[in-house]
Amino acid sequence: MKAQHSISEALTMPPRVDKQSFRDAMSTLAAAVNVVTTDGPGGRAGFTATAVCSVCDEPPTLLVCLNRGTSVYDVFSRNDALCVNTLTDAQSDLSNLFGGKSSMDERFAAATWEQSVTGAPVLEGALVSFDCTISKRVNVGTHDILFCEVAGVCQRQDSGSLVYFDRGYHHLKALSDSVGQRINQAGH
Amino acid sequence: MKAQHSISEALTMPPRVDKQSFRDAMSTLAAAVNVVTTDGPGGRAGFTATAVCSVCDEPPTLLVCLNRGTSVYDVFSRNDALCVNTLTDAQSDLSNLFGGKSSMDERFAAATWEQSVTGAPVLEGALVSFDCTISKRVNVGTHDILFCEVAGVCQRQDSGSLVYFDRGYHHLKALSDSVGQRINQAGH
Repeated sequence: MKAQHSISEALTMPPRVDKQSFRDAMSTLAAAVNVVTTDGPGGRAGFTATAVCSVCDEPPTLLVCLNRGTSVYDVFSRNDALCVNTLTDAQSDLSNLFGGKSSMDERFAAATWEQSVTGAPVLEGALVSFDCTISKRVNVGTHDILFCEVAGVCQRQDSGSLVYFDRGYHHLKALSDSVGQRINQAGH
Repeated sequence: MKAQHSISEALTMPPRVDKQSFRDAMSTLAAAVNVVTTDGPGGRAGFTATAVCSVCDEPPTLLVCLNRGTSVYDVFSRNDALCVNTLTDAQSDLSNLFGGKSSMDERFAAATWEQSVTGAPVLEGALVSFDCTISKRVNVGTHDILFCEVAGVCQRQDSGSLVYFDRGYHHLKALSDSVGQRINQAGH
């Protein structure tokens, strides 16, 4: 266990791991790669995110963590809808594009989009898209956690998933195409 | 896009996808498999969770979604610490055990545990363990979201990850052992 804290902090605060150790440890928490998009009064924007998580199915809710220091933060603050587009194993180029420094016009020009019920852009060919309205925003540290009620889903049945693990991309095949062990126990 | 809502709801509420469509869609959001443990005044408990997510590194924070209807909820409500133990690709048996109906004694007897700084049980041989104090609890739908400050981490360098996707387990090798493409761009 690595922990970093001063003596004065230790008297009043719980111990806290240093930032680099936390980042190194988090690099081994595998996660799906998503392009999160929005459109509305604040304009159109999208970014690559692994910090997306299922919350509950009543009401159907997921969450997205958004750094308040990023260029897209202002747009997402002014809109009340977003779409989580989970990428297939063939879409790492889109992950790089939406995780890089390109303009929003360049990012959106690289793919085909449909407009959802909420108005957020839905990525054609995504593994799954969750069209959402933002129902609650919670401020934690440097990030906002956007709790999102899911208005609609669009799902492909036959594609593999792009996963980020150990600071790189991995490709997961759907179990129907692999010899993986299907169970219904874990997860929700 | 599938959405289910009555006419009266449609006048006042945003559209909402039906529960089964949400669950089916969520089954294609790949996620690492973790055993989340606690010990303290409320007793000792542990459960299998994929709904774990990095939040921010200042302060180092992650979140865990916990169903208020589960048997472990009361214990986690009364304790102020937990440990997220991310499983290696060789630990699917532990995932099944902590996701099943076995007693807590049976669950914990199946592995070796160390006590962390916070008092939460750390799984020997986990891919990575995050020892945490619970800093904030947010109620959303049927779940509590536990925001956790990370006090310490314990990490293995050489193991693959157990991942849940398409309602089954998958095994990801670390990039040092595979031909995957290492990047630093996506994620955080």
